Amino acid sequence: MVLVATRNPLNIGAAARAMSNFGFSNLGVVNPYHIAFREARSAIGASALLANAKEYNTVAEAVADCTLVVGTTAVGHRHLQLPLRSLKQGASLMRRRLESGKTALLFGSEKVGLSNKDLNYCNWLINIPTHQDNLSMNLGQAVAVCLYELVRDPSIRDGSKGPEDKQGLATAGDIERITVLLLETLQASGYVKSRAATESKVRRTIHRLNLKASDSAVWLGMLRQILWKLQSGEGDGLKIAQTSRANRLI
Amino acid sequence: MVLVATRNPLNIGAAARAMSNFGFSNLGVVNPYHIAFREARSAIGASALLANAKEYNTVAEAVADCTLVVGTTAVGHRHLQLPLRSLKQGASLMRRRLESGKTALLFGSEKVGLSNKDLNYCNWLINIPTHQDNLSMNLGQAVAVCLYELVRDPSIRDGSKGPEDKQGLATAGDIERITVLLLETLQASGYVKSRAATESKVRRTIHRLNLKASDSAVWLGMLRQILWKLQSGEGDGLKIAQTSRANRLI
Repeated sequence: MVLVATRNPLNIGAAARAMSNFGFSNLGVVNPYHIAFREARSAIGASALLANAKEYNTVAEAVADCTLVVGTTAVGHRHLQLPLRSLKQGASLMRRRLESGKTALLFGSEKVGLSNKDLNYCNWLINIPTHQDNLSMNLGQAVAVCLYELVRDPSIRDGSKGPEDKQGLATAGDIERITVLLLETLQASGYVKSRAATESKVRRTIHRLNLKASDSAVWLGMLRQILWKLQSGEGDGLKIAQTSRANRLI
Repeated sequence: MVLVATRNPLNIGAAARAMSNFGFSNLGVVNPYHIAFREARSAIGASALLANAKEYNTVAEAVADCTLVVGTTAVGHRHLQLPLRSLKQGASLMRRRLESGKTALLFGSEKVGLSNKDLNYCNWLINIPTHQDNLSMNLGQAVAVCLYELVRDPSIRDGSKGPEDKQGLATAGDIERITVLLLETLQASGYVKSRAATESKVRRTIHRLNLKASDSAVWLGMLRQILWKLQSGEGDGLKIAQTSRANRLI
């Protein structure tokens, strides 16, 4: 589980306690308010879980070894670019995916939730169905409800698992490397007008690929080659095209 | 929902927030630490729900108009005298019973949970299945998880509802009056050696009856008559026995 930009030390402590209650052990914190994190860690009765929590500077690092990254949202007015599932439906999917690789569940800050930038690292989102008069939950309580749902039916396994689920999926770290390489490639190619806008679009596009682990090396190899060509012979698009065609023929 | 002897104002506030998140509105607090309750009520952003919370001196008063009273417990080492259900199973039963009358869900204090005395007012107990290494949840988080489960499947209704469920059940207030009257009757009859021990036993026995509302008046009438007789002609067991037999013949 990953907490992003949490402000209140009580909420970090509460999240850790819920994890311990429901049998989860790996907590990552991204860019917390440092005072909050130190306070939570040094609180009386702070758990071993909290002491072992890993701190990261970016969401990318925190989710690098995960094959599925799920964000949480209270929805509200934001226009979402990602698939949104109810907690019940999402938890069921997460349980299935946990069999083939690590999954990260992301919670944003108390005030604004996950930023649009954070959402770019997510494959899809889950939402706890709350009453329209008060959609937004307390962070510690939202964590508890999500983890409860994840372990609610340990015996239920959906039998409709397709063969593609059994193949290892690319980790978020692999996907990040591919994304960065593709962005550099696009930049070098002159495709990119506004880096920020393109970055979001590219991230989402790659996430939707559902990349297999075995494919990620191929993608990385291809992109490295393209980028190298772009950088070593800038402006010479024709040459690159010829090279790749030649490569394919070998 | 009823909070019993809550100490921490943050927990009262968190419970109220979760209720609002999941669309519940009636909060009762029994014997809270007064400073805690005042603080929770006066906190910035305290909800209308909290402002309208009702304060009671005893659990009996708080659940008087309910036909079902469910307690929460982390189990632990206590030897339980009441039926214990998982949250999932218990919530499903509670949803069915909500159709025929008011239900109370009780949460005990942060440190010790519900006392044995509080448990005497419960029909049965629910438990959130937590990991054996850390069974005990934070109060605000436990409330959120229970209420989430209660509204998780609003469309699912168990079709196996028997005809007895459609009849109005006696409220906890009726049951309390019957219990008090029976205890006085037993006391007057010399049955009671230790009032405390008998009281627990009697309460549980009566709760197991699943009394109908239409029957409670009959029970009250019978007990009142017996008690009156006991008190007016103390020691004369024979006379009472004769009187009740005579009454039955009328």
